[in-house]
Amino acid sequence: MKIIKDILEMQVMAEESRRSGKKIALVPTMGALHQGHLSLMDYGRTKADLLVVSIFVNPIQFGPKEDFGKYPRDLQGDSLLTAKRGVDIIFSPEAKDFYPDLFQTYVMVEQVTQPLCGAVRPGHFRGVTTVVCKLFHIVKPHLAIFGQKDFQQLIVIQQMAKDLNMDVEVIGRPTVREADGLAMSSRNRYLSPEERVSARSLSWALKEAQVLFRKGERKTEVLLDRVSGLIGREPATRIEYARICHPRTLEDLTVVKDQGVLALAVWVGSTRLIDNCLLEDNQE
Amino acid sequence: MKIIKDILEMQVMAEESRRSGKKIALVPTMGALHQGHLSLMDYGRTKADLLVVSIFVNPIQFGPKEDFGKYPRDLQGDSLLTAKRGVDIIFSPEAKDFYPDLFQTYVMVEQVTQPLCGAVRPGHFRGVTTVVCKLFHIVKPHLAIFGQKDFQQLIVIQQMAKDLNMDVEVIGRPTVREADGLAMSSRNRYLSPEERVSARSLSWALKEAQVLFRKGERKTEVLLDRVSGLIGREPATRIEYARICHPRTLEDLTVVKDQGVLALAVWVGSTRLIDNCLLEDNQE
Repeated sequence: MKIIKDILEMQVMAEESRRSGKKIALVPTMGALHQGHLSLMDYGRTKADLLVVSIFVNPIQFGPKEDFGKYPRDLQGDSLLTAKRGVDIIFSPEAKDFYPDLFQTYVMVEQVTQPLCGAVRPGHFRGVTTVVCKLFHIVKPHLAIFGQKDFQQLIVIQQMAKDLNMDVEVIGRPTVREADGLAMSSRNRYLSPEERVSARSLSWALKEAQVLFRKGERKTEVLLDRVSGLIGREPATRIEYARICHPRTLEDLTVVKDQGVLALAVWVGSTRLIDNCLLEDNQE
Repeated sequence: MKIIKDILEMQVMAEESRRSGKKIALVPTMGALHQGHLSLMDYGRTKADLLVVSIFVNPIQFGPKEDFGKYPRDLQGDSLLTAKRGVDIIFSPEAKDFYPDLFQTYVMVEQVTQPLCGAVRPGHFRGVTTVVCKLFHIVKPHLAIFGQKDFQQLIVIQQMAKDLNMDVEVIGRPTVREADGLAMSSRNRYLSPEERVSARSLSWALKEAQVLFRKGERKTEVLLDRVSGLIGREPATRIEYARICHPRTLEDLTVVKDQGVLALAVWVGSTRLIDNCLLEDNQE
């Protein structure tokens, strides 16, 4: 496994790989890797000849009051994990090279970035689409793999790739969970032991909503009331949003016909967690 | 020469060409081809194995009161011209395929789009960068060739390509002029015979400014006064802007040290013309 920091070196290697007929998969990450990331790599390994993991804590997707400074960074630990997964290249550029002086170009997805996290994190998705667009141009992947935990991010990136005719297959893979259901996240390490207990309520509430849905409940209001009740009774929780929306347009649904996505953002103490599940008739 | 309208067909052919080691050059145009465009093709022909000319009147770079509807379209005439120039492919997609329902993603260059044409054509450069980004993803060129007549456009696209790490060399080529100096433009055909006479004043004023500059005049105000005087005395002219700016940042200069670009936008009757020239010590 090779660690590349130089942007041009990565781009030249990517071009040469494509020229020689190799299929390239990219798993974009901000490091602090966990089982969720590793499952994306495992999937990429089965699909590609050259498996690239980018590790870059992207400053422009954090708001001024967000956790950019304290976001966990552990390139050495991450390298050990990725090497075991058969990753070929870690691409880990420096911020000053990635966003040089006079940098001024952004990719904006206008509609699916508006609700949910977009409504409470202004500029966040602009930072995400811009960094992913740049990574696509540098790493030149045939496929790029993202976790479904960041559901809106996945939809936003798929919309960008389609709208801008990027020749990249953008794939979402299932959320990996702890034994008690908590979705894997680099931010889980911020939780105190008490908060960690409260944090279980997100996935439990999602499960409960799925049970209600399967029993025939289709009204968003009823489903969300149950979710809010279950999370609200846990100590240290504060719901930022709980919405059921269309899985492509992300528009709010009042009644779920065929499919909906139940998406949550919940503060547990000073840690912001997100999770989601699909509501559909034929789910397992 | 092949005419391709299908986006995916173009992208697949581009990918196959790259895989087989061919160098691709793209000349993006809105059709209504003239000698200026043809000179870009001649240059591309010397540099590339596969020469692609895109012909697409891009709706999103026109303002609501601009000339999108009447912009000249002549794919048949354009095809004859390009075939003689050794063009391999005309890529001419349909607007409904290029901007399908739910299209919502734009590329924004923030600073160099602000002055000059950006100040009077809101949204114009967003339309330009978005269409060029899409064309780059579809045609996958190694180099892309633009005319220096649209000087700000060239700078904006070079900034975009750099900022987004596009693996494309963006080349500007000299403005081609009529015998009396008028810069070639698809919009020249809008001019009445009387307006056509007045339109000569743009290039004449630029030449005069270059003469003054060579004689040692470095004050923007003095240079622009002379330019405005020369253009203003012609019938049917109205200067929209006349500025001298830094050739990369496009910031206004009050005194020209090493280099400046003198950029003009002038209405002649109901036709808007632009032109520019470099002011520098070592020019011919």
